[in-house]
Amino acid sequence: MTTTAIATSSPDDILVRGRSLPRELIGKLTLTEMLCLCVIGEVPDAHRIAAIDACLVALVEHGLTPSALATRLVYGSAPEAMQGAVAAGLLGVGGQFVGTAEGCARLLARVVAAADLDAEASAIVAEAKAPLPGFGHDIHKPDDPRTPALFAVARTHGVAGRHVAALEALSRALDAAKRRHITINATGAVAAVLADAGIPIAVMRGFALVARCAGLVGHVAEEQRSPVMRSIWEAAERAVPYQPEEKVR
Amino acid sequence: MTTTAIATSSPDDILVRGRSLPRELIGKLTLTEMLCLCVIGEVPDAHRIAAIDACLVALVEHGLTPSALATRLVYGSAPEAMQGAVAAGLLGVGGQFVGTAEGCARLLARVVAAADLDAEASAIVAEAKAPLPGFGHDIHKPDDPRTPALFAVARTHGVAGRHVAALEALSRALDAAKRRHITINATGAVAAVLADAGIPIAVMRGFALVARCAGLVGHVAEEQRSPVMRSIWEAAERAVPYQPEEKVR
Amino acid sequence: MTTTAIATSSPDDILVRGRSLPRELIGKLTLTEMLCLCVIGEVPDAHRIAAIDACLVALVEHGLTPSALATRLVYGSAPEAMQGAVAAGLLGVGGQFVGTAEGCARLLARVVAAADLDAEASAIVAEAKAPLPGFGHDIHKPDDPRTPALFAVARTHGVAGRHVAALEALSRALDAAKRRHITINATGAVAAVLADAGIPIAVMRGFALVARCAGLVGHVAEEQRSPVMRSIWEAAERAVPYQPEEKVR
Amino acid sequence: MTTTAIATSSPDDILVRGRSLPRELIGKLTLTEMLCLCVIGEVPDAHRIAAIDACLVALVEHGLTPSALATRLVYGSAPEAMQGAVAAGLLGVGGQFVGTAEGCARLLARVVAAADLDAEASAIVAEAKAPLPGFGHDIHKPDDPRTPALFAVARTHGVAGRHVAALEALSRALDAAKRRHITINATGAVAAVLADAGIPIAVMRGFALVARCAGLVGHVAEEQRSPVMRSIWEAAERAVPYQPEEKVR
Repeated sequence: MTTTAIATSSPDDILVRGRSLPRELIGKLTLTEMLCLCVIGEVPDAHRIAAIDACLVALVEHGLTPSALATRLVYGSAPEAMQGAVAAGLLGVGGQFVGTAEGCARLLARVVAAADLDAEASAIVAEAKAPLPGFGHDIHKPDDPRTPALFAVARTHGVAGRHVAALEALSRALDAAKRRHITINATGAVAAVLADAGIPIAVMRGFALVARCAGLVGHVAEEQRSPVMRSIWEAAERAVPYQPEEKVR
Repeated sequence: MTTTAIATSSPDDILVRGRSLPRELIGKLTLTEMLCLCVIGEVPDAHRIAAIDACLVALVEHGLTPSALATRLVYGSAPEAMQGAVAAGLLGVGGQFVGTAEGCARLLARVVAAADLDAEASAIVAEAKAPLPGFGHDIHKPDDPRTPALFAVARTHGVAGRHVAALEALSRALDAAKRRHITINATGAVAAVLADAGIPIAVMRGFALVARCAGLVGHVAEEQRSPVMRSIWEAAERAVPYQPEEKVR
Repeated sequence: MTTTAIATSSPDDILVRGRSLPRELIGKLTLTEMLCLCVIGEVPDAHRIAAIDACLVALVEHGLTPSALATRLVYGSAPEAMQGAVAAGLLGVGGQFVGTAEGCARLLARVVAAADLDAEASAIVAEAKAPLPGFGHDIHKPDDPRTPALFAVARTHGVAGRHVAALEALSRALDAAKRRHITINATGAVAAVLADAGIPIAVMRGFALVARCAGLVGHVAEEQRSPVMRSIWEAAERAVPYQPEEKVR
Repeated sequence: MTTTAIATSSPDDILVRGRSLPRELIGKLTLTEMLCLCVIGEVPDAHRIAAIDACLVALVEHGLTPSALATRLVYGSAPEAMQGAVAAGLLGVGGQFVGTAEGCARLLARVVAAADLDAEASAIVAEAKAPLPGFGHDIHKPDDPRTPALFAVARTHGVAGRHVAALEALSRALDAAKRRHITINATGAVAAVLADAGIPIAVMRGFALVARCAGLVGHVAEEQRSPVMRSIWEAAERAVPYQPEEKVR
C-alpha cells in the first residue's frame, strides 16, 4: 500500500512530517526552515539555513524577466485569479534558467566524486562542447556581484565545502583553457552553496520555484499599484511587426 | 511613461527596490523578509516578521488537499517539468480556500473601521446569509489548534492588535447568535494576524501562494521518493464509476 | 454515490458519453463536433456546427495578445515543456477578454427573456454605468469586420435567432442613447451566435479556451521556427525602465 | 529585426497568415482547418483533414485520467477561473503520455528514412531497452480498438503512407521478437497517421494539447452539473494514508 509521510490531522492536532504544527512548528520555524522540513525531511541547523536563505534571497527577484513579464501579462488579462498569474510566471522557471543550476550541480557532483578535483575539472572543461552551466554572464563582467556575496555567507557559516571548492576548481580550469577570466555566475554559486547545504539536485528546482514565487507576487503587487501590462504589450507589438513568411516550412 | 521600481542591474550591482542585492540583501535577509520587501516594499521589524512567519508556516502544508493531489497527478504525467506540477497545484489556491481568508479580512476591516466593535460584529453576524468566512471546521472542533498558536505568537511579539480583537469580537457575536461555540479556523486567524502585521488584503493571496508553493514542492519531493500518483488515480476511478446520464442538460 | 457519464473502457471498446469511440466517433466527427459532444452532451446538427465553427475560428488568433506573449516568453524559458507555455497563455483567457463575452451573453439572456425586447434593451443601456460588454473597439471602427461575417454564417444556416436579435436591439438602443454608432465587436457577436447555437453561458469560456489553445500552439510553432522571445523581453525592459518609487504604499 | 507572420489588423480587416479572417476564414474553415493554418501554415486538403480530425477525436477524452482529475480538483478549488482548471489539466499532457507519441514518431521517421524498412524495424526492436513507444496497453488486448479505426480513416482517405507502413513493420518485427502479439496502441497509431498527414513531430504535442483541451472543458462542464471533486479528494485520502517515514532520505 502506498502511504504519505507528509501530514495528518486529528481534532486537536496536525502533524507535519511527524511534528505537531501548532506546538512545534508555528512560532518556532521560519518559512525557510518549514520549506526544508517539507522537502528534505529535516530542519537544517542555523548555519545551513543562513546559507539556504542567502541562495533563496539571491533567486527571488531579477527584474522584468520573461517569467515576470508572463505574470504581469496574465494578471492584467485575468485579475480575478492572482494564482493564475503567478502560475504562468512559474511555468517559465524551467530548463533555460534553473536548468542551468541543475546542470552545474551535476558537474560539481562529478568533480566532488573524483579522486583528483583539478584533473576532473580540467577534463570537464576539455570535453565541454557548449558554455559550461554556471559560467558566463551578459552584464556582470568580470564578476557577478552575487557570487562573492553567496560564498561569503557560506564561508562565514562554515557551510562552504566540497561543492564550492569544486566550482572554484572548474573556474580555474576554465580560465586556464580560455586564457581569460570567465564570470562565475549566481546560478553556479547557488548550485554550489545549496549542494554544500545538503539540498539534493533533484529538488533544487523546487527551491528556485519558491524563491521566484515570492518575486512574482511582488510583480503582481506592483501591477496592482501601477500597471505596466499595456506598455509591455504595446512595446512587444512594435518590436515584432507583422511580415508574411516567404514560405512557411 | 510607465516604470518599475522593482529591480535594475549594472555590471557590479543589482538593486532590488532600491537596495543592493549583494551588499544589503544576500546574507542579511531571510526569504520571508525578502518576500515582504518585494511585495509591500519594506522589511518589517523582527516582531512583525515572527508573526508573518507563523502565518506562512501555518499555510505551507495541509496534507493531500486538492492542490497537492493536482501537483502529484501532473508530476507523475510530466516529470520533465517540475514547474508545471507546482503551477498546477497553485492554480487551486483560489476562491474556495484562500478566498476565505480574504473574505474574513474584509469583515475584519469593517469591524476595525467601526466606532463600536461589538455592535458592528453583531450586525455582521445578523446580516450574514452564509457561514462567516474564518469560522467553522469539519475536523477541528471545538477549536482549531492553529488558531491559539497563531494568536500566541502575535501576542508575544506585540503584533496582535485591532484585527485580532475584531476577530474575537466576531467570534463572541457568532457564538451568542448560535448559542454554541463555533471554531475560529486557521484561515480566520491568519487573516487577522497578517492584517495586524501590516499585510494588505489585496496581496494576502500572494502570501498564501508562496507558503503553498513550499508545501507543493514537498509533495513533488515525496512523489520522487515514493510515488503515489497511480494510487490516487486508481482510487479516483473506483470512487467515481461510469454511469450514463439520464438526460444531459 | 457520485458518478461520471463521460467515458468508460473495456478491452475492445471505449465509450464516450454513451457512444463507441472507435465505431461512432473516430472518422465520423470533427473536433468541433466532438467538443460539443463532450461539453454539452450532444452533437449539434450541421447548421449549428457551422455557426459554432465560425465562432471558434474567429477566436483562434488575435496576433501578439498578452496571452500569446505569455506563451512565447514561457516557451523560450522552458522549451522542454510545450504544455507549460500553452497553459501560461490560457491562464490569460480570463475576465478581461472572455469575461466580456460572458457579460454580453448575460445581457442578451435578459433581453431574450423580456416581453418587450426593445424596451429591455433601452433599460439596459440606460442603467449601464460602464461600457456595455460586446460593444466598442479601439481599431475596428465604425464596424468590426468579424461581426457581419459571423452574423452572415448564422443567418445562412438558420441559426441566428433571439440572441442575435437581442444584440441588434441592444445596438439600436445604444446608438440612440449615444447619438452615434458604436461598434458591435466580435466578442459580442460570438456571444450571440454561440447562444443561438445552444451553448450555455457557463461553458462559453470553455469554447474560447479550445479556440485560443489552437492559436497558442501556432505561436509556439512560430517560436520554434523563428524565435522572437528575446525581442519581446528586450522591448519590455526598454519600455518599462527602473525608477525608485516615491513611497511604496 | 524579428517579425511575426501570424496576424495583423487594420480598421476593416484582420489578416491571419496572410488570409482575411472575416472574408476567407470565418464561415469557410472548421476549427481543425484553422488549427492547421496557424500551426503548419497551410490548410490541408479534405482527405488530410479527415485523418487529422480522426486523430484529434481519438485524443479528446480518456475518462478520469490524471489530467482530468487535476482539472476537476482545481476547478472545485477555484471555480472563479475555469482557465486555471483547464491549464492545470493541460500541464499533465507531457512526457509520460504525449511524449510517447513523439517517441514513436521519431522511430517511424527512422524507419521511413531507411533503405530497408523491415531491416530497420528489426534493428530498432533489437536495440530497444525499454518497451517501444506506441506499443502495449494495459486494458486494450490483443488490440486497441482505436488503432484499426484510425488506420481505416487514413486508408479510406488515401492518407496512410510511409509512416503507417513503418508502424506496421515495427509491429511485425516486435511480434516476431516477442513471439506473441503486442498491441499497437492509439498513441502509436495517432503518431503514424499525423505524420502521414504532414504534421511535423515538433508540433504533434500541440495537436494533443488542443484535443485534450476540448476534453478537459468537458470535465469542467460535468463538474458544474454534478461535481465529483470531493469524492476524488476523499478517495485519495483514504487510498494514501499517513505513515511516518522510517528515514527521510
